[in-house]
Amino acid sequence: MKAEIITIGDELLIGQVINTNASYIGKKLSETGISVARIVSVGDSEKDIIDELKYAFENFDVVILTGGLGPTHDDVTKSAICKFFNTGLVLNEDVLNQVKEFLAKRGRTELNEANKSQALVPEKAKIIMNYWGTAPGFLFEENGKIVIVMPGVPKEMMGMMENFVINYLSKKSTGSVIKQKVLKTTGIPEAYLYERLKDTVEEIEKFCKIAFLPSALGVKIRITVKAETKEKADALVEEAEKKIREKVEKYIYGVDDEELEMVIGELLVEKGLKIAVAESCTGGLIADRITNVPGSSKYFERGIVAYSNEAKIQILGVSEELIKNYGAVSREVAEAMAEGVRKISGADIGISTTGIAGPTGATPTKPVGLVWIGYSDKNETFAKEFRFGDDRLENKQRASQMALEILRRKLLGIEI
Amino acid sequence: MKAEIITIGDELLIGQVINTNASYIGKKLSETGISVARIVSVGDSEKDIIDELKYAFENFDVVILTGGLGPTHDDVTKSAICKFFNTGLVLNEDVLNQVKEFLAKRGRTELNEANKSQALVPEKAKIIMNYWGTAPGFLFEENGKIVIVMPGVPKEMMGMMENFVINYLSKKSTGSVIKQKVLKTTGIPEAYLYERLKDTVEEIEKFCKIAFLPSALGVKIRITVKAETKEKADALVEEAEKKIREKVEKYIYGVDDEELEMVIGELLVEKGLKIAVAESCTGGLIADRITNVPGSSKYFERGIVAYSNEAKIQILGVSEELIKNYGAVSREVAEAMAEGVRKISGADIGISTTGIAGPTGATPTKPVGLVWIGYSDKNETFAKEFRFGDDRLENKQRASQMALEILRRKLLGIEI
Repeated sequence: MKAEIITIGDELLIGQVINTNASYIGKKLSETGISVARIVSVGDSEKDIIDELKYAFENFDVVILTGGLGPTHDDVTKSAICKFFNTGLVLNEDVLNQVKEFLAKRGRTELNEANKSQALVPEKAKIIMNYWGTAPGFLFEENGKIVIVMPGVPKEMMGMMENFVINYLSKKSTGSVIKQKVLKTTGIPEAYLYERLKDTVEEIEKFCKIAFLPSALGVKIRITVKAETKEKADALVEEAEKKIREKVEKYIYGVDDEELEMVIGELLVEKGLKIAVAESCTGGLIADRITNVPGSSKYFERGIVAYSNEAKIQILGVSEELIKNYGAVSREVAEAMAEGVRKISGADIGISTTGIAGPTGATPTKPVGLVWIGYSDKNETFAKEFRFGDDRLENKQRASQMALEILRRKLLGIEI
Repeated sequence: MKAEIITIGDELLIGQVINTNASYIGKKLSETGISVARIVSVGDSEKDIIDELKYAFENFDVVILTGGLGPTHDDVTKSAICKFFNTGLVLNEDVLNQVKEFLAKRGRTELNEANKSQALVPEKAKIIMNYWGTAPGFLFEENGKIVIVMPGVPKEMMGMMENFVINYLSKKSTGSVIKQKVLKTTGIPEAYLYERLKDTVEEIEKFCKIAFLPSALGVKIRITVKAETKEKADALVEEAEKKIREKVEKYIYGVDDEELEMVIGELLVEKGLKIAVAESCTGGLIADRITNVPGSSKYFERGIVAYSNEAKIQILGVSEELIKNYGAVSREVAEAMAEGVRKISGADIGISTTGIAGPTGATPTKPVGLVWIGYSDKNETFAKEFRFGDDRLENKQRASQMALEILRRKLLGIEI
């Protein structure tokens, strides 16, 4: 089965909103054995929606539309759909009750007109209930084709996908299974990773497809396999992964949606260790990432964002003299911060960052992008120097990633 | 002039990568007076790229392609382009030198084959130099149509857009100017905001278009205007903005790309005040957001991520008894955290968060999503209760936004 995803909204064309819905839906369909042939964004115009819907309906088996179902006047998807399927609107009591219940839970007992209009649904449609918002979704089946319409609010669309759409489409899907796995690396540039893997890629591409996807957090290696059954696809992916790991295991910190903070979280739980973090140039990003993981309170003792020298001295016990002699951005201060936060907090491991995030703050010997990352446990304390780029946010990202990667390698006994 | 944006890459269809490039390009074209009619994503397939390019070339004046120009084997855009324009590859010395220089700056003096292949360019193309990576961009003009091809790495594409493409297209653009402005609100749900603005929207939509865009950080109100000249467009936008502000000024914290952390940064600089932050449930996100702003070291004294009770007691001076009597998630502890971090750091203002981010940690009286936000200055200390949702990351986002919004309103003397 082939699918087209149509995402609707002027905000997408004008670039006001980033199209995360398309990538989420693309991923879910691919995993279900439905191949996404194209993704198209059109504006909030009845004509454009109907035109694109016609094209997609003629050329593909499944069409997924999102957006333009909200309670405000600029949302025209519902009327476009009604025209396309030649159907009218009727009041649906189930939807009305669901809207009431949804709002009541949020302490609002009175429905305004915008809220009530959500219960008007296309007569021909099967309803997809929305438990995460007020706009219901719709499903049409005609001439063996499936058209699914969902709101554009990511949480609501995702709720409907997971609660209903994926199951529904899985039962219909007869195509070969597309299976993908992503190996996430960090600490090695794309061209160097490719050089190490060139021969391996050539070999395994006989049965799979390999792509390299670089970002500030590292390079992802994506394996894609197409096979008749899930079992066959799994086996081929496993074989490709094994060959790649033989060459670059050290750099692979996780797979698929695994973030580095999840990986180190599992390792810390497994080893029963606690960490504390002392951040200067990363400004809280490391703590933020660590605490994005549910259950992180088990191993994350505290984070200190010691932006001022006073904070470094007062809460981390860094000596004033050290800062005066070497500067706040130095090996010595990074080490003192990591050791200080570990000892004062009573955690097993301390990590630290100090650097010039930019755009200001550089000196002739300390350019923007210079970052020292410190590590301390009961056996050793050290710091490593890095040169990232000249973009402030990217420097924060890359420094936080490298700090977590150093922690991962230490926890696993991998050379840094 | 009308444009189509074509973004290339299996990773987009399979949902491995979110299409931020399309939104960035859409925004820039709209601002240049070029109207983006559609955005299409296709896979790394020569045929699909050529097919879509044919359609776009026939129907629109400008076609922008990104992606698939990297140094690895899965990048096929260059060969597709060569076929479409019936041209061959030639070695370009300028590009080769630029690649060498780019890599030398990063300490790499030897080029591998992948690097060298970047200097092979379509003979018919005008070259767009890439100072941010190794793959050059290409420009073709034929039959009055413009086709621009750029790499998919966001930083490189953005560099080329800002350095060359926007200027180039501005000179060609003859269309009416599309001007947009976004007013960013927080602390009021979409339906309530719409209710307050319903009559105003009806009135001003005679000369502009209004859209409501909700997210975890608040609801954006987007004004879109089309006019013959930039001056006329500016005047109409200003008029619409004025009418909207008359009704909901209190909730508008910024415009366009302004983030709340930038707004409070400016206010703090203006007033010469310093802040310190004590975070529990937001886990460093507030500090991270504040330090995303260049120059934040001027007013951000420190951040404490007091995840453990020990940290709350040891570094913030919260009394053990208070935590025992009221629990860590309580008005009393939020107030003590905000006051503690302010007094200990010597900052003028302290803000704090303590809550149940989820998915675990809830009790019968303290559900997931319950958050107390504390504020303290020399005149007063208070905390406010919020109920967010059941999603951990969204709770962190919403709590960080509300904490910064409380700070903004206090700094401006707006009622909370």
